[in-house]
Amino acid sequence: MRGTLDRLEAVIAERRTASSDSSYVASLFAKGREKIAQKVGEEATETVIAALSGDPAKLTSEAADLLFHLLVLLADGDVGIDEVLAELDRRDGVSGIAEKAARQE
Amino acid sequence: MRGTLDRLEAVIAERRTASSDSSYVASLFAKGREKIAQKVGEEATETVIAALSGDPAKLTSEAADLLFHLLVLLADGDVGIDEVLAELDRRDGVSGIAEKAARQE
Amino acid sequence: MRGTLDRLEAVIAERRTASSDSSYVASLFAKGREKIAQKVGEEATETVIAALSGDPAKLTSEAADLLFHLLVLLADGDVGIDEVLAELDRRDGVSGIAEKAARQE
Amino acid sequence: MRGTLDRLEAVIAERRTASSDSSYVASLFAKGREKIAQKVGEEATETVIAALSGDPAKLTSEAADLLFHLLVLLADGDVGIDEVLAELDRRDGVSGIAEKAARQE
Repeated sequence: MRGTLDRLEAVIAERRTASSDSSYVASLFAKGREKIAQKVGEEATETVIAALSGDPAKLTSEAADLLFHLLVLLADGDVGIDEVLAELDRRDGVSGIAEKAARQE
Repeated sequence: MRGTLDRLEAVIAERRTASSDSSYVASLFAKGREKIAQKVGEEATETVIAALSGDPAKLTSEAADLLFHLLVLLADGDVGIDEVLAELDRRDGVSGIAEKAARQE
Repeated sequence: MRGTLDRLEAVIAERRTASSDSSYVASLFAKGREKIAQKVGEEATETVIAALSGDPAKLTSEAADLLFHLLVLLADGDVGIDEVLAELDRRDGVSGIAEKAARQE
Repeated sequence: MRGTLDRLEAVIAERRTASSDSSYVASLFAKGREKIAQKVGEEATETVIAALSGDPAKLTSEAADLLFHLLVLLADGDVGIDEVLAELDRRDGVSGIAEKAARQE
């Protein structure tokens, strides 16, 4: 698992400075943060629709798209995926999130 | 990293059958797939807004919320996070996604 | 105002049965409800991003896109825009919504 | 129809300066544009889910929520709903949107 996210993060960092003609990632960075954020919103909607369709293969595929574009958005915002995972750890897992959610709702 | 996602997935699986009075995760599962999907949509919107705010701490926090609720949605759809990461590997990383995106757009 | 929404609703109903080669609306209906719903999600994300950009012209344009695709989604679900507006009236305007929101949050 | 949107727009403008203790609209404006935009994103996700559920009453209700919060977001951005409808008219209805969409996709 770790390998996948690490590898993707490294590939995204590398492609960031590539030509936007040849690289989808480079073209995203060239279009800017609004466009990258828009893709995250789009992929989230597709993930929601896939989940409701009840098709696990579709959900797997859309969740992969969402994760990938989230990694690009994090890179654009200079946030490492390990910082996000550390934040999840800091919350002491689910119980911390439960408390946060309980406060907010 | 791997540790965090693995641990969260295990905690979510364990809480799934807990009382929904005491556990936020159990209450999500009790409300059903539509509610869980809705939370993923909400957290994605918050991640988009955090990214545009330019505040890395906010982006880190919202991305953590998004990842967490995505894990719950995957669990509800009987999809393991390792299947999603395997899908990202199958695409041979960014190049595969680039091709997919190029075909779709 | 009324004229615009009425006219769009009528045009959408008319195009629904047109060839999907010549009509964007017909092509949306041909792709099905999931695709139409996805467009509503996408346009909502773009409206959010436009609002945060602080550019009124961009917000106007994206809100128009969102309204348009919402009309297509309503047509696909056999709901008239006048039913949606009647629902807003039934809530006795803002106060009704305020109560609903207060109950939910 | 016109009456409903006009009335809501006027009510929203009036509540904007009310106490945020007593008015949901005032509390939204007090929380600021990010929070209002977030609500639009949330209601859009709920509209997507309602459309896929196939329940017209649910779709009507969520579309009403979406329209209402869109009006609040437009007010916050100093855009009148008549400007959005005029934009839809300017596009010469569906054909204009079809062209725009064709260019974008």
